[in-house]
Amino acid sequence: MRLGVCYYPEHWPESMWEDDARRMKALGIEQVRIAEFAWSRIEPTPGEYDWGWLDRAIDLLGDAGLQVVMCTPTATPPKWLIDRHPDILPVGADGRPRAFGSRRHYDFSSPSYFAASQKICTAIAERYGKHPAVAYWQTDNEFGCHHTVVSYSSAAVERFREWLKARYQTVDALNRAWGTVFWSMEYRGFDEIDAPVATVTEAHPSHRLDYRRFASDEVARYNRMQVEIIRAHSPGRPVAHNFMQLFTEFDHYKVAADLDVASWDSYPLGALEEQWFAPDIKARWLRSGHPDFASFNHDVYRGMSKLPFWVMEQQPGPVNWALWNPAPLPGMVRLWSWEAFAHGAGCVSYFRWRQAPFAQEQMHAGLNTPDNRLDVGGNEAAQVANEIRTVLAANADANAAIRSKVALVYDYEAKWLFEIHPQGADFHYPRFAFEYYSALRALGLDVDVVPVDAPLDGYRLIVVPPLPVVPDDFAARLARSGAHVVFGPRTGSKTHDLQIPANLPPGALTSVLPLRVWRVESMRPNVTEAVRLTDSNDPSVDDGFARHWRDFIDSDAAGSFDVRARFADGHPAYVQSGAFHYLASLFDDALMMRLFSRIAQQAGLDTLSLGESVRISRRGALTYVFNYGDDAHTLGEVDDKAFVIGSRVVEPQGIAVYRSNG
Amino acid sequence: MRLGVCYYPEHWPESMWEDDARRMKALGIEQVRIAEFAWSRIEPTPGEYDWGWLDRAIDLLGDAGLQVVMCTPTATPPKWLIDRHPDILPVGADGRPRAFGSRRHYDFSSPSYFAASQKICTAIAERYGKHPAVAYWQTDNEFGCHHTVVSYSSAAVERFREWLKARYQTVDALNRAWGTVFWSMEYRGFDEIDAPVATVTEAHPSHRLDYRRFASDEVARYNRMQVEIIRAHSPGRPVAHNFMQLFTEFDHYKVAADLDVASWDSYPLGALEEQWFAPDIKARWLRSGHPDFASFNHDVYRGMSKLPFWVMEQQPGPVNWALWNPAPLPGMVRLWSWEAFAHGAGCVSYFRWRQAPFAQEQMHAGLNTPDNRLDVGGNEAAQVANEIRTVLAANADANAAIRSKVALVYDYEAKWLFEIHPQGADFHYPRFAFEYYSALRALGLDVDVVPVDAPLDGYRLIVVPPLPVVPDDFAARLARSGAHVVFGPRTGSKTHDLQIPANLPPGALTSVLPLRVWRVESMRPNVTEAVRLTDSNDPSVDDGFARHWRDFIDSDAAGSFDVRARFADGHPAYVQSGAFHYLASLFDDALMMRLFSRIAQQAGLDTLSLGESVRISRRGALTYVFNYGDDAHTLGEVDDKAFVIGSRVVEPQGIAVYRSNG
Amino acid sequence: MRLGVCYYPEHWPESMWEDDARRMKALGIEQVRIAEFAWSRIEPTPGEYDWGWLDRAIDLLGDAGLQVVMCTPTATPPKWLIDRHPDILPVGADGRPRAFGSRRHYDFSSPSYFAASQKICTAIAERYGKHPAVAYWQTDNEFGCHHTVVSYSSAAVERFREWLKARYQTVDALNRAWGTVFWSMEYRGFDEIDAPVATVTEAHPSHRLDYRRFASDEVARYNRMQVEIIRAHSPGRPVAHNFMQLFTEFDHYKVAADLDVASWDSYPLGALEEQWFAPDIKARWLRSGHPDFASFNHDVYRGMSKLPFWVMEQQPGPVNWALWNPAPLPGMVRLWSWEAFAHGAGCVSYFRWRQAPFAQEQMHAGLNTPDNRLDVGGNEAAQVANEIRTVLAANADANAAIRSKVALVYDYEAKWLFEIHPQGADFHYPRFAFEYYSALRALGLDVDVVPVDAPLDGYRLIVVPPLPVVPDDFAARLARSGAHVVFGPRTGSKTHDLQIPANLPPGALTSVLPLRVWRVESMRPNVTEAVRLTDSNDPSVDDGFARHWRDFIDSDAAGSFDVRARFADGHPAYVQSGAFHYLASLFDDALMMRLFSRIAQQAGLDTLSLGESVRISRRGALTYVFNYGDDAHTLGEVDDKAFVIGSRVVEPQGIAVYRSNG
Repeated sequence: MRLGVCYYPEHWPESMWEDDARRMKALGIEQVRIAEFAWSRIEPTPGEYDWGWLDRAIDLLGDAGLQVVMCTPTATPPKWLIDRHPDILPVGADGRPRAFGSRRHYDFSSPSYFAASQKICTAIAERYGKHPAVAYWQTDNEFGCHHTVVSYSSAAVERFREWLKARYQTVDALNRAWGTVFWSMEYRGFDEIDAPVATVTEAHPSHRLDYRRFASDEVARYNRMQVEIIRAHSPGRPVAHNFMQLFTEFDHYKVAADLDVASWDSYPLGALEEQWFAPDIKARWLRSGHPDFASFNHDVYRGMSKLPFWVMEQQPGPVNWALWNPAPLPGMVRLWSWEAFAHGAGCVSYFRWRQAPFAQEQMHAGLNTPDNRLDVGGNEAAQVANEIRTVLAANADANAAIRSKVALVYDYEAKWLFEIHPQGADFHYPRFAFEYYSALRALGLDVDVVPVDAPLDGYRLIVVPPLPVVPDDFAARLARSGAHVVFGPRTGSKTHDLQIPANLPPGALTSVLPLRVWRVESMRPNVTEAVRLTDSNDPSVDDGFARHWRDFIDSDAAGSFDVRARFADGHPAYVQSGAFHYLASLFDDALMMRLFSRIAQQAGLDTLSLGESVRISRRGALTYVFNYGDDAHTLGEVDDKAFVIGSRVVEPQGIAVYRSNG
Repeated sequence: MRLGVCYYPEHWPESMWEDDARRMKALGIEQVRIAEFAWSRIEPTPGEYDWGWLDRAIDLLGDAGLQVVMCTPTATPPKWLIDRHPDILPVGADGRPRAFGSRRHYDFSSPSYFAASQKICTAIAERYGKHPAVAYWQTDNEFGCHHTVVSYSSAAVERFREWLKARYQTVDALNRAWGTVFWSMEYRGFDEIDAPVATVTEAHPSHRLDYRRFASDEVARYNRMQVEIIRAHSPGRPVAHNFMQLFTEFDHYKVAADLDVASWDSYPLGALEEQWFAPDIKARWLRSGHPDFASFNHDVYRGMSKLPFWVMEQQPGPVNWALWNPAPLPGMVRLWSWEAFAHGAGCVSYFRWRQAPFAQEQMHAGLNTPDNRLDVGGNEAAQVANEIRTVLAANADANAAIRSKVALVYDYEAKWLFEIHPQGADFHYPRFAFEYYSALRALGLDVDVVPVDAPLDGYRLIVVPPLPVVPDDFAARLARSGAHVVFGPRTGSKTHDLQIPANLPPGALTSVLPLRVWRVESMRPNVTEAVRLTDSNDPSVDDGFARHWRDFIDSDAAGSFDVRARFADGHPAYVQSGAFHYLASLFDDALMMRLFSRIAQQAGLDTLSLGESVRISRRGALTYVFNYGDDAHTLGEVDDKAFVIGSRVVEPQGIAVYRSNG
Repeated sequence: MRLGVCYYPEHWPESMWEDDARRMKALGIEQVRIAEFAWSRIEPTPGEYDWGWLDRAIDLLGDAGLQVVMCTPTATPPKWLIDRHPDILPVGADGRPRAFGSRRHYDFSSPSYFAASQKICTAIAERYGKHPAVAYWQTDNEFGCHHTVVSYSSAAVERFREWLKARYQTVDALNRAWGTVFWSMEYRGFDEIDAPVATVTEAHPSHRLDYRRFASDEVARYNRMQVEIIRAHSPGRPVAHNFMQLFTEFDHYKVAADLDVASWDSYPLGALEEQWFAPDIKARWLRSGHPDFASFNHDVYRGMSKLPFWVMEQQPGPVNWALWNPAPLPGMVRLWSWEAFAHGAGCVSYFRWRQAPFAQEQMHAGLNTPDNRLDVGGNEAAQVANEIRTVLAANADANAAIRSKVALVYDYEAKWLFEIHPQGADFHYPRFAFEYYSALRALGLDVDVVPVDAPLDGYRLIVVPPLPVVPDDFAARLARSGAHVVFGPRTGSKTHDLQIPANLPPGALTSVLPLRVWRVESMRPNVTEAVRLTDSNDPSVDDGFARHWRDFIDSDAAGSFDVRARFADGHPAYVQSGAFHYLASLFDDALMMRLFSRIAQQAGLDTLSLGESVRISRRGALTYVFNYGDDAHTLGEVDDKAFVIGSRVVEPQGIAVYRSNG
């Protein structure tokens, strides 16, 4: 547990640097990220490096006792490079190159940019790889930001064809896998295949999915190149990348596999405004963020990080980039920071030290205002720094690794597949995965978010939000785990090639759950379908409702499952076969929580009923309580002496930390 | 009355074909449409045809006693053809060619594609024109689907100039007809005229309307080319095209004039979701479709078909292509099938035999599921096949032609004109024509839908939804018919050149209805205007309201019409002059039905009050009753012995058929 | 006070012209605008002018006793010119040239078009500059219409670079001013700088603002060229341009500085439909327009016109160009006309004499219908002409200039800046400026709308809607004026280079109002914040609410301001320091009016409480009353004998005019 900050010495007069470093240290900050947008200052003229200012900045930070997170500056290639190699610019779906003038204006498939990136990364890694102040590295910045993963350039198409060739070997195999006979879309050679764009009506879904997979792989390849250069010149320094919440155009697991630290950039208010939440939800959590949003991402990145994950950028006040930008309530910066640690973070690093008075992000708050006074966020960071000392002093295992009893399977391809091939316009995978997660958290459960190929042993409950493609060994691994398993609708509904399984959904899962989904329907937003539990006392009363989607289930194996709930028209809504549970729809929050609670009990897990505002997390011997609500929350049955921070009464925007064995 | 199915042997292992044919026959299917997307299998390599598989498929279907509807495969030109002739691709309003990778990626004006189409059509017609199993032909597939009628290619502009030259002879005549003096848009030669696109503000409406007329004519010309080739090689086999509901970018009458059979593709649920209906209406008829939608289209295509019209593709279950795709209620596939026959269909052909597990439409249900089991739709089709036998056995004139007492004038140019020149943003012609039709149907009236140049003798009531351009002889023909005639607002409001008539609207209609529309106003969606009947008992009570539009009417001929209803501000809302009725606005449903009922009585027609869910149709000696609602409907005064299908109690999603002279 | 009309002889047979002129004169019209779209008739072939028809038209109008407003026809370059110089076409943000076929298809930066414009303007000015009937000139038509100010052509980029060079001298100065170090956007030379378009995420805001300033300057330069040519050949004839309400892509003050008459085109119904008003407001004022909309614009253009401003085009009936186009209530054309005179207009000129039966605007009403009968608007114009005679006869100073006690500062750059850099998506500057104006008008106050550099002496109350950039001398000039000054939120929040002021907002205003805005937040539409006055009797009751925005205020100078209202969370919502008032948010209408009323009283101004429908204006010795509402309004305490028009009871859509010293 430690604090960090993002710092841009190049934005400020050199005369301010020393005082900045001193004040950071005094505030309790231990690490400083720098230089991720500084290419034009490092290499102001092609081939001529200006190391002086950066040498001085790093020395100064190191002298102040701060550890530097050194970055590669490849998110912002300078104008001279673009002018020399215009093919660096990515090409949009409209066929036009995107222009210089902001950031991330590069194509992952551009050979020119790959070479230019190798050169600048090597130069920087050579110069600072062994600098005593440089403790960590960050590659690039926020891959995928501003929809920059998929490009339709000729360079991308060229590499896509190679990618296809490697995957399918022969074009006949591709034609079979995709089913191009439909609408005479058959190809006679890989060189006939273009990007799936600008077609008269929707392009072939298998073609589109492969293009997305390819584009994702290009990100991993590009990142790997940087990691290898850094490792070659800076041995022993962990390498991180800062992922951005829900920029899901590439597979974060695949990029994280090459890193030491998976970090992410946490902006609870901006995310609330920009994501799928309904307007009333956005108003409800306006100045706190949704109680489960940051947690969900903490658990996502914890799962893919070799070392403890970090929050590389923590929102310190209002941001500039959402449609509307409210100010956090007093206390929220502290709460968010502690929530990250409670979920296993190794570091929380605030973005940024001081608000810049110019350019695109001049309205983005920092720990300090542009006139260099400590802002609200800065004061809360100082409080957190003090509290960290208290916690660490009192608890040996405060930095313990986390392993939960509940796993939620989260997948990136699922997002792309449902986006490409939704069948119901608002079938938004991250939203549904998040709703499952949120229901579990409201029951007081700690959750590991894991990929579909994760080891599953040791879990008691495994929740699988709608997962169209399942690996062949998935059913066997689930069965071996001994856990109760809940599947969302559409799970197992597609093969890896985006076809319907020969035995119909759930395809490869029928070995553990002998269903046959013989029909589906998607429901428009103003349509729901009543649901009743089959063991209800009063069968004339609805227990909840279904929305978005319905799987119609039957089975060839008589008695192969028990129907636990039905839709109003009699079709099964929830069936169970031993430890395997299948939900044929998405339900309202209350019903979803009721079902998860039942199943958790079957799995031998205790649940709470925390409501919408209070959340609890456990790390090591400590239990953390967070109050996102408007009213104080009183904890029952905790010994007053057990509290490390706070007390039994947790005020709005307040936290409490207590020893579980207190 | 017979059933058909759409079948894609190329999608399935050849080993399945024989069983498929056998099961089709056993189900009661008599005709099978094939090959409309099979170009890449027929001509896998330029100039080298692979007839073997298709020969075997056709032989096998014929051997099973099935009649084949052979298609030209021009809706899906293969990749090699596009690569050789990139000018085949249509060009969008954004100036970019649309790409290969789905279907309909061709420009009707491309000389390359015209030639390539002639070649493949000739090859197929030569090979199968006299095959004993080939009983019918279909040209291409769903002209106009995916907005593919209008292209902005240089080839299209070239042909547009020729089209203009033929129409106007001199550019001076064009300048006068369009009124290009406005805004100095005058042309000095036909070669100065471009497509009306990408202008700074709206392009000239006459220019736009002519471009739409031209584009429509290009479709007719292209279809005619195919029909002529087929007729030359396959004499005596009727030629059809499958129109798609409300793909109105071309004049269906003009294409149908070259065909023997006008058929259409009926997807009641997909259409409900995709068309103009309000969200509450979409939820109301979610799993049945709107009670008048399929009927309207049956009546449209019946009117333009020389032989009895067909439903070439009948929705058999959930589809894949709407934003949301619900499942039909049990019974609806049967109901829809019988409704088509009741409206005069010769054949109802289901799309498709078996759901494909791959490509864009893998979520589109068939009569069989992808694992080759008979689906709900398949079972209902079998039931219909049995019922057909009962009906045909008992009723000599079950296949009688239909001629109604009520005609509704429906026009394609009207759609384009109001789209180009709406004056009120939501003035949606097909919607208003449909609302008029629906009101007539709720009154229990059978309706012929006819073009503006149709013979009108024999009708008692002729309803003319807003029809901006009327032929010079229209008034005389209407008067000669002796029918009562109802005009919607804006009728006669434009000349053929899209100018305001010299005598103001209703222009050429003033000979029968001496009005002068001296002002108009369009009303935004949250504005209505109260309407009162002039013969109302209580003149202080509103009888309904106007919406969307108001014509302000006066007349120079004193006493030339009677005012039957007024707007709240005193202006006439409905006037009558003898048998001619003019509605100055669009009214709410209740008022519209009340007025239509009154006028029908004046025309000597009996009306019923069927409400929103029940519909009645008459064909020959049989009366058909359809219940789209949630409650059973009981028929009065029908002898129990008269029923051929069903009884006096018509269940939800049920039908009844009885002899009218029973 | 006089009436005019817009006339298009080229649209009508020459045989009609003489009668038209006679009837205009008889109606009371004194001036006629012609020829602004007639280029293709003046120069039908390159270089060959056809003056004959225009000579005859002008002679005929002059002979009838009418004064001609002669126009340059540059808003509609003919096709032959475009074909010869395709670089005339402006380029859209999508990189595509916009096409010929409507109007305003030219790029202000095109050297070809600049030269062609010089040529046609010179030819016309030479021919008619001294014609006795030509009394005035109009340059071009509605600069900025259809979003035609900003072009992304290479010609524009070329001139932008020159403009930047002139502004910044060195590229280092530009880099510093913009802050391009952020995201490595630094430039090494002016020739590296492109238009700020098509970037991956938002382009640099300073770059964007400068591009907008440049584009605005191009309009002024282009207009100045025309004015200079006209003045050279037509000395003594005033030159006007017809601005369009809220086409704010260029600085109207800068263009007006080169003119004699600032005129504008007033379409109250079209504007209501097309502008920011909520649907219920659009329905509320459907057929009258918003009571303050035309007034606001009258006051805007009065302030920038050297001679009395004109309404160059006055809506005479329904228009064609809004999404929905209602008809004005009877009386509104008269009311609008008098309202213009009450606000200082020299002329109200109706658009157009007769409705054209062809082309884009065929549904736009005129004073006469297309069949040449006087329409409602024509009759009301005749009534106004008679009333003008009455008023002028009875009141020597009816044409007096207007100088109000209240000034509202209105700025064009503010619009662009908030559009580029909103921080809250719906921060719409013209809307907020209009709301402030509307509140003042509902209090019965007459308002001068002035630019930020206007002389301020003599005003008692100066209202400054959110004004991000303030000149350095603004605070001093405000203080010198002695007026009470009200600032909206965000005032002084940016430097001229679009940076945050070094001392934080309100930057240069801290000399008069020692605040520090240390934080801001924008509020989404479904969020408000309660506000309470600090001197409220019952501090538990809210006095209103804040919306859209909050400035968080503190101060280093203890006791430097009084807090007059607070937000629910305690932060100041309204503070006062002497005569300076700062509103930290936008408030609901009622609270805004209450605050303005208090402040007006402090400023020694009497206020009324006119409600939403009645408005009062004063010019010379006359007071004008306008009733936009549905109910009659009775004036108190006015002597019956004082009325020049109307009486104490002002009917709906009615007016009254009385001598204030009556």
